[in-house]
Formats: sequence, C-alpha cells, structure tokens
Amino acid sequence: MDSRATTLAQSVLARCDELGQCSSEPGRITRLYLDEPMRAVHVRLSEWMHQAGLSPHVDNAGNCIGRLRGHREEKVLLIGSHLDSVPGAGRYDGVLGVLIAVAVSELLADHQLPFHLDVIGFSEEEGVRFKMPYLGSAAVAGRFDPAWLLREDEQRITMRDAMSSFGLSPDDLDSCRYHTDQVIGYIEPHLEQGPVLERSGQPLGVVTGIVGQSRLQLAFRGEAGHAGTAPMAGRRDALVAASAFIQEVRNTALNIDGLKATVGSMRVHPNTPNVIPGSVELTLDIRHLADDVRNHGVETLVAAGHRSAEAEGCTFEVLEETSQHSVNADAQLMSMLTDAVNECCAGPVLLESGAGHDAVIMGQHFPMAMLFLRHPGGVSHHPDERVELDDVAVAIEVLGRYVLRLAEQFTHQQSV
Amino acid sequence: MDSRATTLAQSVLARCDELGQCSSEPGRITRLYLDEPMRAVHVRLSEWMHQAGLSPHVDNAGNCIGRLRGHREEKVLLIGSHLDSVPGAGRYDGVLGVLIAVAVSELLADHQLPFHLDVIGFSEEEGVRFKMPYLGSAAVAGRFDPAWLLREDEQRITMRDAMSSFGLSPDDLDSCRYHTDQVIGYIEPHLEQGPVLERSGQPLGVVTGIVGQSRLQLAFRGEAGHAGTAPMAGRRDALVAASAFIQEVRNTALNIDGLKATVGSMRVHPNTPNVIPGSVELTLDIRHLADDVRNHGVETLVAAGHRSAEAEGCTFEVLEETSQHSVNADAQLMSMLTDAVNECCAGPVLLESGAGHDAVIMGQHFPMAMLFLRHPGGVSHHPDERVELDDVAVAIEVLGRYVLRLAEQFTHQQSV
Repeated sequence: MDSRATTLAQSVLARCDELGQCSSEPGRITRLYLDEPMRAVHVRLSEWMHQAGLSPHVDNAGNCIGRLRGHREEKVLLIGSHLDSVPGAGRYDGVLGVLIAVAVSELLADHQLPFHLDVIGFSEEEGVRFKMPYLGSAAVAGRFDPAWLLREDEQRITMRDAMSSFGLSPDDLDSCRYHTDQVIGYIEPHLEQGPVLERSGQPLGVVTGIVGQSRLQLAFRGEAGHAGTAPMAGRRDALVAASAFIQEVRNTALNIDGLKATVGSMRVHPNTPNVIPGSVELTLDIRHLADDVRNHGVETLVAAGHRSAEAEGCTFEVLEETSQHSVNADAQLMSMLTDAVNECCAGPVLLESGAGHDAVIMGQHFPMAMLFLRHPGGVSHHPDERVELDDVAVAIEVLGRYVLRLAEQFTHQQSV
Repeated sequence: MDSRATTLAQSVLARCDELGQCSSEPGRITRLYLDEPMRAVHVRLSEWMHQAGLSPHVDNAGNCIGRLRGHREEKVLLIGSHLDSVPGAGRYDGVLGVLIAVAVSELLADHQLPFHLDVIGFSEEEGVRFKMPYLGSAAVAGRFDPAWLLREDEQRITMRDAMSSFGLSPDDLDSCRYHTDQVIGYIEPHLEQGPVLERSGQPLGVVTGIVGQSRLQLAFRGEAGHAGTAPMAGRRDALVAASAFIQEVRNTALNIDGLKATVGSMRVHPNTPNVIPGSVELTLDIRHLADDVRNHGVETLVAAGHRSAEAEGCTFEVLEETSQHSVNADAQLMSMLTDAVNECCAGPVLLESGAGHDAVIMGQHFPMAMLFLRHPGGVSHHPDERVELDDVAVAIEVLGRYVLRLAEQFTHQQSV
C-alpha cells in the first residue's frame, strides 16, 4: 500500500469522526437538509478543500463543491457523494465518499489535469426533511422542479424559506446546473451497504448499475371476529392470507435470479390478541437490475396476492404502486475503473447497487460510475456502520490512478 | 309464542336501548367498573327490579342484585350476567342477560318459589378499567383478593378509592359472598357472540362448557438488513419465519377437532418498507374445551415456531404464557335446561362457549349453566351487535319454565 494513501485514509477516517459530531441530536448522528449541523459541515469541509488545493463554494441548493482547476476549462469530472444523514446514522454513509474525493484531489494537487475536478458534497440524498430524496443531485442535473419549494418540513417550514434562511437563493437554482456536454462523468465512492464484498473477501467493487425499484402498498381484507367463538372453518383471517402471500414473495424471489423482494412493513387491524385480524396492510419492495424482470416479478406477486386472499375468503388490493427504473453505469467509465482496481488489488467484484444513491439521478444525465467499499458487517443507517482503513487507502489509490488514466485518455483524444 | 313473553321481550329490548344511553362517551357505549354511567344503570335497573317484584340492593363490589323472595329461606338460585361494557360496545353483551333475568322474575312473580331467585347484574366482567376481568363474580364467589384493591386505573385511581367514591365499603367485600351450600346454581343467559346458532337456524343453545384458553406472547428474531442490498439467500427475515408459523397455526387448528388457534396481534421491527424485518412479536390464542387437547396444541405449535424460525436462520422465543382451564356446565342443570328448550322450540343446539363469561368464575364454585341466544351476524363488542325479538321472547319463556321445573324438583327432593 502506498504510504501516502494510508496517511490520507487515516485523515479521511478522522474527518468522518469529526463530521459525526455535526448533529442535531445529542449522542447520535442526525443531519438533515440545511439544518445548522449541515452549516458546520460546510465550514469544516471548505477548510479541508482549501488545504487540498480546491476552491470551495456552496451552490444555491446547498451543495458544497470544491474545484481543483484544470489547465483546460471546457470539461469537468465530478466525484462525490452526500453530506446529509438519516436520523441515528453511522459515520460513513455519504460523507466517506466526499472525503475520499477530497483525499484524491489532495493526492493529485501537483498534477496539471486537462479538466476541472469538482469534488461535490450533495446537500440532500436521504429525503428525510422534506420527504423527498436527491434534492442536491436534482439541482446539479438540472431537474429540480420549482414546485418542490412549496413542500413543508415537520415544523411547517417551506423548502423555499429553509433555503433563504440558510443564505441560498431559491430563485436561482439554475445556477447549480452542470450541462451534459460539459461533464466527463460522475464518480461516486460509497460504502457497499451490503455483504457481497465482505463475502468475496475483496476490498472494492465496481458497480454495473443501480437496480430499478417498485414499491407497493397492499391490503388484505377479511372479516374480524372473536378468536374464541368463530369456528376455524369459515374464518376470513386477513393475517393468514397475508402470511401465505409473504411465503410466496420469498419463494418467488429465490427462484428468479437477482430479484429481491421484501415485505418490510405490516399493520394488522384491529391487532388485538383475541380478535381474528380483519385486515392487514403491508408494503412490498421489489428490485432488479433488469426492469422487465422486475415488472414480471410485480405481476407474479400481485397474482399471488389475489390467490392467497381468495384461499382465505379475503380480498386483495394494490393501494399504491410507485417505481423507479434501473440506471446503468457508463460502460467506458466502468471498464476503466475496473482496470484501475486491477492494478491496485485483486480483480474487483462487479456488482449491482441495490440501494439508491445520488448516482441514480446523476446517471440519468451524465456518464456515471460507482466504486463500492467493503462494508464489514454490512450494517448501514446505524451507528455500527464500519469501514477498514486499508480499504479506504486502496480506494484513494485506485481513484487517483483512475483520474490520471482519464486525464491521459482525454489528452490523447484531444490531440488525435 | 306466549304473548306475555313477547311483551316482556319488547320491554327487554327497549331497556337495552335505554341502558345503552348510560355511557361515558358521546355517540358510543362505554361503561366501565364504577363509573358514573354505571351508577345511572343501577338506578334504572333497581326501578325495574322493584316493578318486577324484586328487592334490589348494590353489594360492596358494585353488583346490582334483586331478590324475588321464596317461601323458604335456605337456598338461592342466581340468574344474571354483567352490566359493564368494552369501549365502543353494542347494546346487548351482558345487559341482555340481566334484563332477561328481570323479565323471568316478572313472569314468575305470582309463583311461590321454594328458594330465593336472585337476579344479579355483575359490576365488572370485561376487565377494562383495572386490566383485570371478573371482579364482580370473584366477589360473589368469595375469591376477591384484597391485594387487587391496590390496582390503579389509567387516571391512577386505586380500586379501593374507586369503590369508596362509589359509596361501597372495600373492607367488607366478604359480605358479597354466596356460600356454596346456599346456591342451587348460577344460570347465565347471553348472546352467543359467534355464528353457530345462526348457522344451525336455532334460536337457543345450551352451553356444555367454557373452553380453556392459553395465551402466548411469542417472538421471532432474525437480522434486520437493507431490502435492496442483502441477497435473498442468507437473509434472516423474521417476518418470513413468522409467516410460515402463522400458516402452521392455521393448519394445525384445522386438523384438531374443536381447536381454535389465532394470531391476533403482531408487531414488526423496525417496520420500514425498505428494511428486512429483524424481529416480530406476535400473540397466539389457543382454546379447546378439553384441557389436554389444548395443552397438546400449545406444545405442537411451540415446536412449529422453532421449526419455522430455524428454516429462516432465526430464533424463536416464548416470552409469556398464561392459561385458564376449561369449566364444564353442571350436568343436571344443563340437562334440565335442554328439556326446557325442547318444550319451547326445536331441539336445542349443544355448544361450547369459546368466550369467557362470569360463568367461568361462578362455574368453579357453584353448579353453572348457560343459555346462548342466536346472534345475527355474530358481531360482538361492536355497535352492530343485534338480537331478534322472538329469540328473546323464547329465552324468557324457556327460563321461566326452567325455574318452575327446578322449583318442582326442589320441592320433590325436600319432601322425599
């Protein structure tokens, strides 16, 4: 391992600890869009960007961006992730990627790159404050809808007022936008938030794409009754129907390669020990990298829901269905990232991202690639979130080589 | 149908409507132990008892009791049910039985019975206010534990203070007690709270016994995880395990004659759409008239819980188990009640009671019988609770004949 990369990785981890102190809740990490802890993060991050040779600014969506100026002006490479957190978060989700990007810039500060390198700390990815995710990347991608400014948080503060109070100009969000012909690509380093790399024994993975996702709100409706007086035969127990459905969800997902299907949330009515459940509402989360496989999974499971309901004399209803199609990584960026990983450590694992990231939005507008870091224990959105120093160091080294490789290729293309 | 019985039945239903107005909540029926609406019930009920020729009083547990004096003093026959309600109750659960008993006394007022006939309106059966059922019948059966007086309601009023405020003497609860050698029997007329009589097309049923009940609090524990990043294989989804168990509960109960098993209440953690459930807590209610069959059912299902958990890499735990053994009706009282029903309408349905009643407590100390009335729709503990006028009339007629038959037999036995 390059000793410079190790020193930078130590600094990254210390900075993650320090940003973990910027929280609106004592004893745990909670940092929402444009709250005061986020301002403290901007102050520290801007200092570190300065030290690394970057010129920092905060855009009108609250993204904190530092530029390593290239010797040519036309193009820009973006590397980053997000700065906000879920309530009760760990120290690494989001900020790790931003601080790795700062470290990569520091590693490259003496090189004259033929494009600007913009390190971007997105202001909002988790969607907690205004119940809407990806606000920061939406502004950068030029798809921020001004109607969103009317949304209110739990204190009934509008997004517009929150921006103004933070010192931003909500009427000038167009200024945040990067244009498609200007951007070479967007690279996001991120914790895997899953077990694949740990199981494979590899520190880094290259993301092939981000899965599409369908989220359904479902209901089984039967008939409530007295648990002691209603004979078993003839009951219309909505929980028995829902349970048969949950078994089908598991079996169907196990039988379709790559499909993930989860019933995560469930409400039973009236939820009383001596009353037969009259209705059950539950959620179904279905993901797959191939949108047609996912859509087929949704159809199969909706049919299974009807069958499970009928078998118990119940009815089944899809109350709500929302979906997000899958986003593929850019083939060329992905291939070069794979080569860079190959140079630094054993052959990288190619894997999909089952979780959403700013890369979902960015990847719809710009060439996108993601580098996953091994996630010991795989526990994310939780104080137990962990990452290994050596894995961070190799990620910094890989991304440093990758940017130089992009620079060489860029210079070569321009001179041909 | 005897036209006198029909007139009395009309009066019973009108009185049920009137007592339904005695509620602590506007627009719905909620009447708890020793609350002000219960005092209003006592006032009205005492008036009606007077009119029927009974001498009413309220005992120190708050039971409202009216005596039709017999020409001999040694023995007493008790007929009644309870006066309290669940929150948001119907008009008939409990009060119907008490008012039928008043009507039966009115029917018999001109007869000289060889024993006292005590109509009893128990003060507390549902267990809502102090989270403990059967307070009224416990006092009458002589098993009221003075330690209960320290229990507090949600306003932190102790049972002792509630009794004193109502004008009762909590230190003289022994005065409520009927001694075993004094009581001929306890007869409880009650809505079936189930579908058996309606399905059989019969107005009345004679209860063979009240089922024993086990209530278990169970937990499945697995591992929470990200619904998008954790592969299906290797998940430890506590809800999938719990669902397999619920299927087993249903199948086991369907295969054991008379066994009723219900998962009525369930909590999923963290209950978030995109998080694999890490743990599930649920209740299991198991009932059967034969205690050994019920105990076998509990064993079978606890074993099934362990199997369902293991199949998903989860653990299974019985957090709490409480049980109440079954109580049989007195063979002789039951047989005579069956004869009385036979005289008035088509052969009665013999059925078990799957729900608890004051008869559970009374039946452990005195000979007990229950007469069930057909329950259209079977919906109980709900404003939709209904009963047919003709069924009430035939119940009054049956119980009138039954008491006279008991009187004849009593006189015969005494003279032999």
